[in-house]
Amino acid sequence: MVLGLDIGGTHMRLVLADRRGKLHHRHKGRTGSREGVDRTVQRLVAMCRRGVAAAAAEGSRVVAVGAGVAGKIDRRRGEVLFSPNLPEMNGYPLGAELERQLGLAVFLENDANAFGLGEHWQGSARGIANWVGITLGTGVGGCLMLNHDLWRGDDLGFAGEVGHMIIDPAGPVCACGAHGCLEAHASGSALLQGVERAVASGRLTSGPLWDLRQRGALTPRSVHACALGGNALARELFERMGWALGLALANLFSILGIRHGLLGGGVSGAWDLFIAPLMASLVIRCRMLPAGDASIRRSALGDDAALLGSARLAWQGHDARRGHEGERVSRLWPPWAG
Amino acid sequence: MVLGLDIGGTHMRLVLADRRGKLHHRHKGRTGSREGVDRTVQRLVAMCRRGVAAAAAEGSRVVAVGAGVAGKIDRRRGEVLFSPNLPEMNGYPLGAELERQLGLAVFLENDANAFGLGEHWQGSARGIANWVGITLGTGVGGCLMLNHDLWRGDDLGFAGEVGHMIIDPAGPVCACGAHGCLEAHASGSALLQGVERAVASGRLTSGPLWDLRQRGALTPRSVHACALGGNALARELFERMGWALGLALANLFSILGIRHGLLGGGVSGAWDLFIAPLMASLVIRCRMLPAGDASIRRSALGDDAALLGSARLAWQGHDARRGHEGERVSRLWPPWAG
Repeated sequence: MVLGLDIGGTHMRLVLADRRGKLHHRHKGRTGSREGVDRTVQRLVAMCRRGVAAAAAEGSRVVAVGAGVAGKIDRRRGEVLFSPNLPEMNGYPLGAELERQLGLAVFLENDANAFGLGEHWQGSARGIANWVGITLGTGVGGCLMLNHDLWRGDDLGFAGEVGHMIIDPAGPVCACGAHGCLEAHASGSALLQGVERAVASGRLTSGPLWDLRQRGALTPRSVHACALGGNALARELFERMGWALGLALANLFSILGIRHGLLGGGVSGAWDLFIAPLMASLVIRCRMLPAGDASIRRSALGDDAALLGSARLAWQGHDARRGHEGERVSRLWPPWAG
Repeated sequence: MVLGLDIGGTHMRLVLADRRGKLHHRHKGRTGSREGVDRTVQRLVAMCRRGVAAAAAEGSRVVAVGAGVAGKIDRRRGEVLFSPNLPEMNGYPLGAELERQLGLAVFLENDANAFGLGEHWQGSARGIANWVGITLGTGVGGCLMLNHDLWRGDDLGFAGEVGHMIIDPAGPVCACGAHGCLEAHASGSALLQGVERAVASGRLTSGPLWDLRQRGALTPRSVHACALGGNALARELFERMGWALGLALANLFSILGIRHGLLGGGVSGAWDLFIAPLMASLVIRCRMLPAGDASIRRSALGDDAALLGSARLAWQGHDARRGHEGERVSRLWPPWAG
């Protein structure tokens, strides 16, 4: 079996999965990264050992570990280059450290890429050769699946970063520092910033969003609840999200010559509030694609997508290493051949 | 040898090329598409027969034809689905008709994709695995080269259409009908539209651009000459072009996780006027890539890029068909095996 990890800014989660993607054990703990990277890694190692024990209890063993982490990842060196949610891990050799402490092969990947591997393996994108995935959370992540393979570009530590596609250079500032990224229009943070802009402009002075803000209880989830309750500003923020996602997907389809998109992440729970403006925006902007040909799906795996994707990553890494070893063995065997 | 064709709205050109890309013959004629598609195809066939005769004169023969055409192309059926510069060819089975009249295998491709094949084979992108190509002409074309192969997406008739990436939804209307495409900021048409906007707003009332416009002599080339002469409006239009190209390349690099771009097409002759604003715009917007890592090259082949790419396409198509035949033969051989 393999372990799949999803390491976020607040929580870290683990699954024990077999080769067919069946889950045999799961565990969740807090990341607590402010206490320092060593404590976080201690907790991670303890969590993995519980997974190894769960496998042993079933008479099986763990052969590899896959881990999804938000940020820029050096896959080859197993290093977190830059993580906005886990700044304590910037430059930390997480893969090598876990390998040393666990005695298992560890494979790292960006969390949105892990999401893509999961949905392609077990979720909404099974059998689709070419598609773009977008995860809507605090920020916006993305992945490209090309010819059934996760696209990694020049292996620069990032690929599929559709959240930082600039869709409106006059738009709001993004966490990355640029103006008008998709993330600044279509994320949990963008919802909260939209409320703050309404306060700053004097538009928002009372009502449920105002009350939530005064109580310090404004979250993407509470903005969602207000929109469901008919609040005009909240509804507009989700319409803006749909507009931005439609524009971004139109660009991606024109650039890549494809027609499939898949949306996941916590904020995609507000699907009914943004999908109609998304499709309207997409159809008028993707001039190369006949109107009915665009296909936008919703994640089938929810929170488990990145976990399953990390498990898939572990199997792929394990098989690739075995393949290489197999090759090496066959090159050396029979020994008299050279 | 093979024939490579570049079929544009005004001219069509042909080269006769050997397997190493050496050119043995070239010819240029007018397309004259307004006289009807049959007359255009007659002229094309006559031009190809001159190429075949030139090969015969060297004791060689032509084995395949490649052709680059602006627009949406159905490669499998050899059909021009939609061509903005050759509207008479919309829905025309150009490949099949040329095959029938010439008795040679004919392979069609979008002209910007042909540009990409040419530059990767003989030009500035030799040996670069992953890069995006942008052709600056009357419009803006594009191609993606991924893992040393031309990317064709879902084979929908388009891919790499970076000219229709929307970079500013409040920007000028594009020929495609959408607002704020790269093409509406960074093409020959965009230069002319920029002059018209300055007239409409009352900014342009005299000077060299005004005089050219009054004489009906305003072209991208004459705007270029005015910019070289120090004209402020003309210089601004090229700065705007650089700004837009930098933003588009930043988006493409973030999405694809790559760092190489290549610019060609007639308007890229104004390189010195737009490359500094392009690099400035790219560096501040591509937040994932360290500032010095972006590499923007200029076409090495100029007008010959698409012609050489069409020749390359012909060789690739020829070899693939021979490969398939070879496979079929080996499956049938030895005959007693089944």
